[in-house]
This record gives sequence, structure tokens and C-alpha cells, in this order.
Amino acid sequence: MPETKVITLLTDFGQRDGFVGVMKGVILGIAPTVRIVDIGHEIEPHDVDAGAFVLRSAYRFFPPDSIHVVVIDPGVGSTRRVLAVKASNQVFLAPDNGVLKYIWRECPDAEVRAVEQSSLFLPKVSQTFHGRDIFAPVAAHLARGLPVEEVGPLISDFQYGEVPAPKFEAHCIAASVIYIDRFGNLITNISEEAAGQLHPTELEIRGRRWPLRGLSASYAEGSPGEPLVLIGSSGFLEIAINSGRAADVLGLRVGGQVRMKTRGS
Amino acid sequence: MPETKVITLLTDFGQRDGFVGVMKGVILGIAPTVRIVDIGHEIEPHDVDAGAFVLRSAYRFFPPDSIHVVVIDPGVGSTRRVLAVKASNQVFLAPDNGVLKYIWRECPDAEVRAVEQSSLFLPKVSQTFHGRDIFAPVAAHLARGLPVEEVGPLISDFQYGEVPAPKFEAHCIAASVIYIDRFGNLITNISEEAAGQLHPTELEIRGRRWPLRGLSASYAEGSPGEPLVLIGSSGFLEIAINSGRAADVLGLRVGGQVRMKTRGS
Amino acid sequence: MPETKVITLLTDFGQRDGFVGVMKGVILGIAPTVRIVDIGHEIEPHDVDAGAFVLRSAYRFFPPDSIHVVVIDPGVGSTRRVLAVKASNQVFLAPDNGVLKYIWRECPDAEVRAVEQSSLFLPKVSQTFHGRDIFAPVAAHLARGLPVEEVGPLISDFQYGEVPAPKFEAHCIAASVIYIDRFGNLITNISEEAAGQLHPTELEIRGRRWPLRGLSASYAEGSPGEPLVLIGSSGFLEIAINSGRAADVLGLRVGGQVRMKTRGS
Repeated sequence: MPETKVITLLTDFGQRDGFVGVMKGVILGIAPTVRIVDIGHEIEPHDVDAGAFVLRSAYRFFPPDSIHVVVIDPGVGSTRRVLAVKASNQVFLAPDNGVLKYIWRECPDAEVRAVEQSSLFLPKVSQTFHGRDIFAPVAAHLARGLPVEEVGPLISDFQYGEVPAPKFEAHCIAASVIYIDRFGNLITNISEEAAGQLHPTELEIRGRRWPLRGLSASYAEGSPGEPLVLIGSSGFLEIAINSGRAADVLGLRVGGQVRMKTRGS
Repeated sequence: MPETKVITLLTDFGQRDGFVGVMKGVILGIAPTVRIVDIGHEIEPHDVDAGAFVLRSAYRFFPPDSIHVVVIDPGVGSTRRVLAVKASNQVFLAPDNGVLKYIWRECPDAEVRAVEQSSLFLPKVSQTFHGRDIFAPVAAHLARGLPVEEVGPLISDFQYGEVPAPKFEAHCIAASVIYIDRFGNLITNISEEAAGQLHPTELEIRGRRWPLRGLSASYAEGSPGEPLVLIGSSGFLEIAINSGRAADVLGLRVGGQVRMKTRGS
Repeated sequence: MPETKVITLLTDFGQRDGFVGVMKGVILGIAPTVRIVDIGHEIEPHDVDAGAFVLRSAYRFFPPDSIHVVVIDPGVGSTRRVLAVKASNQVFLAPDNGVLKYIWRECPDAEVRAVEQSSLFLPKVSQTFHGRDIFAPVAAHLARGLPVEEVGPLISDFQYGEVPAPKFEAHCIAASVIYIDRFGNLITNISEEAAGQLHPTELEIRGRRWPLRGLSASYAEGSPGEPLVLIGSSGFLEIAINSGRAADVLGLRVGGQVRMKTRGS
């Protein structure tokens, strides 16, 4: 049933200029029955880290053999490569700039190729819109059944990208904010597995302190205006404020540092 | 023809974080041929009233047996229930927080159930993203033909929600603004049926007055900058300004009060 | 294979109010298997020129027989006509307000009709939402195979719209900005064909001057903060700034004037 193959799109193109629509036009011209799903197009221009996080939160919820196209590509037109990656029963097409950094970590089976088979591209490739001229047609050919092996050779010298690690000390954790969502929730780099062991009793940000009652179960717990921590839907520890925007109230941005005391300290 | 069944999505998730894309991934994993339509995702976070209005304006234009999924859900993770409602040949899935308040009023035949059949949910249900873990899979199973009776029992103690009523006096109406659209048009709680009887001659807002020439037929009527009233596409009386944003010019928000004199006063 | 027919939507409706979703509901009620693609809905309200440009950049990348629906329609409800245009193996539905101005110039074969066959419309046509009541159902009927000849008569007195022409002088070009994209790139009215002959050496805006190194190949060329010119993906000469927003840095808006010296001057 080829009509049920899914291509997802994640870009920083926004919705104003028609760039995403054009990519879909190219895809449907080649693979008329493919299902196209937008993961999002409102990533801040060139924010590779945010794109990496959003992709990580999304890809595992798609059917096997879905093709995930990521075009957050500040280096478009330079010599940066385009990657085609087979990992965890999914395929990823993305520029070689670290936007797949969580995929490498979560999928040790990843096969990474450089997309070089230019016969798959649009006849005329611009230097400024590879989403239309390279990513869209290659994704469409893959959706029609082209084996990923045919897009180009295996490589191993791709950009690995950095993911900051939290520091676990006695009765204390030092964490970083890796993403802030639309609701202002602060997603940290403390994984669900690590957080599951914790009973945080105090939050410290730039010397200010707030008491915590361990891990909360939901955003609706706790008094309005009070910080709480919980395991968010992306599988990381989040700092939230009931009926408020934690990022604004606590004055934190991506990369910001947070310390938490845990029971016993 | 199962491939023509429609699921609509209306949320306050925005487009940045990939939440909507993830819901679509879950849906397509269960119901690969369903048609998914976005009604909108830019409802202000937690604005249940705005969601209720947008849903009301939209649902009747969808094919019979469409499944409308509404996730504006400040109480996610608390004990609030999820409702599955059969009404007017359509199905609605929504949290029990009043977001279906117009449906109750327009569809006296509504059958309201509490979604309790947890075998339909994703294997692991988070406390913070029921859109992904409960709403999406239940909608997909319904689209595949699961009878709505199987999601849970009939209930009658759901949140009814409030809809303010206009006050009709001799030669005068006191109305409330219930929604403001992208163009700044002010939608009031005066229904098309009530408005059809009227010939408004004066608009009064916080003591300021503007003359009106009865009901206008379109936004293009009247001089630029001049307030006019018309029956909007949602079936309510709207206050608009030709080539302007009525909400800004008149300084009104949702809940704001408006008085209109009608012919003879 | 009717299920592969494409309808595209380009509007200034935004994503908040559900207007676009409603149009899709109407379309799927009539043509349940059509593919619907959003070109965009974030055109500034009533910005016909921006809509015209975005449409021009997009339409040629869609499969033959696609139906492009454009609803940027400040005159909705007035006596302005709705046009159905067959051109370049595509069909366009749009208000008669110049939003198709690039189509006339690029498709001398265009057959232009006034949409008058009201049996195709929704039973009740509002004065304020023709996207739902006229454009959506007509597009759906066309997608199901209705010949475009049946929507109404050929006309020749449609709005042609203006496209400013650049002025080529000896060693100098005077150009206008016709569009600014999400990244702040300034798209001018100098076509790829004209630009291909040029070696620009200096950019002048309101008396201020910046050196240019001819046509750049990509946004990644040149030093950060430095203006560059290149042939953009839309086929026009663009002014960009590596890692910056040219529109903001250079203080230009749509309609703004630019002069460029070319080699030899």
C-alpha cells in the first residue's frame, strides 16, 4: 500500500512565503499518493538545536518506514553535505550540521549516507532552496520505494553535534535548559531514567531558591505561580509553573543553568 | 471507503514544538488512510472559550461522521475526564471543561460519554500530553470504525459551560463580545435570527457613540474607518470597520459590552 | 486516479480562526479524495501584492491540473468578480483584484472566466466568507472533473495589476523591492535573465553605499553582516546579508528603491 507511506517535514521556513507548499508540490509530483505531515515550520531561523530537539520528540511516534525531512540549513549553498540516514526503522534526510545529534545517540544502528545521486534532484538546483530542489525530490523517490542505498555512499565523518550532560553530585544536580516550549516550560537535559531516581527538594537559579515537593505528576499540581518539576512528554525533566510561563518567571533561556537539591542534602 | 473518513484537530499547541505532528504520527500509525484536517492550533494557551467558538464555526461544514478532536486542556493530568460525544452526525473528542458548550446548545441529540477504555490509549500515558497518548489513538480507532459506544459509559454530569445571552430592551440591545477574529472583527452574542429583525441606528461603547446605517451587507460597505455591523459568516452579528481593526479602534476585548439603539428609539 | 488531484490554498486568513479548516471541510465533503496543500495563510491581511508574489513562486512546482485557490480578498461581498483561469496546465481561482498579475505575464495562454454558475456554490452564500461559500465548493467540483468552461463565461476586462519594471541605465540599474521573505531577504524586480548579465559592484540605498563582489552564489558567501546579491530561488535578484536580516539592516520595505552600479561604471 504505497499510499500510506509518510513523509514528515520539519523546517525553519515559517508559513508566510510558500516554501513549504512548494516542497509539497514537488513531492506530490513524484509520489502522488504519499501522506505528508508537518512536524513544524516555526523553528527560529537557523536554530539547529531547537530543530534537533523537536525531531527527537516526534520521530518515534510515526509509522515504520516514515521519511523525516529536516531543513534547518544555515549552510545551504555551501559545501555542507545532505545526509540520508536509516535508523530505528525510519529514514532521515537532513543537512550535515548536527541537527540529527539525538538520532546518533538514540539509534546506534544508524547508517549514514551522503546524498550524491544528483539524477534524483530537480533538473535545476538553486543555491538557496535545497528543500525544494534536493530534499523534496529525494524524499519522494524514497517514498516510492527507492532503496536508501542508492542515494549515495556510506560516510562516517558527519557532524556529531553536542548534547550537554547534566552533572550529578551528592544530593545535587546541575542541569542545562535544552528547549523551551510554547507554554514556556523549561526542558532540561535530565532524562526520565535519571529523574526517576530523584526526589528534588529545592530549585536554585542564579542564587535564588524555590522549594520543590519532589516530582509532580502534572502541570495542574501545586499552587498557581509556584515552580514544579515533572517528567515531560518528551522524556526529560521539565521545570514548569502552574498557570504561568516558567521561562519568563524564572528568567531562563536555552543553555541556562539550573541546580536542584535532592532528598538527603 | 475508509480512506475518506476525516479527523479534525483543534488545539492550543501552536506550530513550534511538533506536538500536532506527533498526534498525526500516532493517528496514521493506527488509521493509515484517514484524512486529517487542521482546524487550528493558534488558540491562545488555555483559552477554552475561543476554542469553543472556533469549533462551533467549523464543525457543521465537515462531512458526516467526521471526528473532531479538541485539545485545549489546562487540566491535563488532573482528574478531568475526556469526553466522546456523538451529535449531529459528527463525533467530538474533548476534555470535560466546557469547550463543547455550543455543541450542547445546538445539538439536543448529543450523546455524551466518558472515555475510559484505556486499551485504546498508547501503552504508556504521560500526565502532560493526552493529545498524543489518549485523544489521537482514540480518534484513530473511531475513524477505523470502532463504535463510539465502546469508548466508555454515557454520562450526564459534564461541564455545561456558560454562553452569555444578549439583553433585548425596547429599542435597545445590550450585547457581549464573544470572539475577536484575525481581522479584528468583533463577534457578538447576537444570533443571526435575532439580528435579522433589527435595524441598528447607533452603537454605544463605554459612553461613546457612533451612528449605524442598519445592517451592512459586507465589510466593503461604508466609509473607511467607520464602524458597521453585519451578520458574519459564523452566524452572529459582528462589529467591523472598513479597512480597519474594530477591536483596536473601539478598544474592545472578549467579554466587552456593547449597546445598540435600534429603529424607533 | 482522481485521488491524486491537488488543490492548493493561499489566503490571508491566518491560523487562529478556523477559516482554512472550514474550507477544507467543504472541499472534502464534495471531493473526498482530493489532496489539499497549504501554500500559506500568513499573508498580511489584504496584501494582494504579497499574495501575487507567493503564488508566482509556487504554482509551477505543482503537478499538472492542480487547482490553485487564492483568497486574498479585501473586496469580498462587493461586486468584484471571482475568476477561474486556465493557464500553463493549471487552474487558478481568485478574486478579480490583480492577485494573478504574474500569471497573466508568464502565461500568455491564460483563459480567464468569471465564476457565475451559482449552482456550484454552497446553498447559502454569506457576504463575508466567499472562501467557504464559493471558492471551496467550486474548486472541489473542478477537482472532481467539472470542466472549467462550465463555471462561467470568458472575460477580458479583468484587473491586470501592476508589476514595476527595473530601469537599466549605462552601468547602473534602478530596482524596486517587490517582496521580503521570512529571513528578511529583499527580493527585487530584476529577473534572473536580466541579472545573469550583470556584475554588480556597488549597492546604493538612499545615498548610502556598500561594495558588492558581483553575484554571490549563496547566502553563506561573504562576511557576516555584509550585503550580498544573488539570484534567489524565486528567480529574481535578491539582496541578502550573511547571518542577518537585510530588510532591517538596510531599512527597506516593499516598494523601496535600490540602485546598483555594475562593472565598468
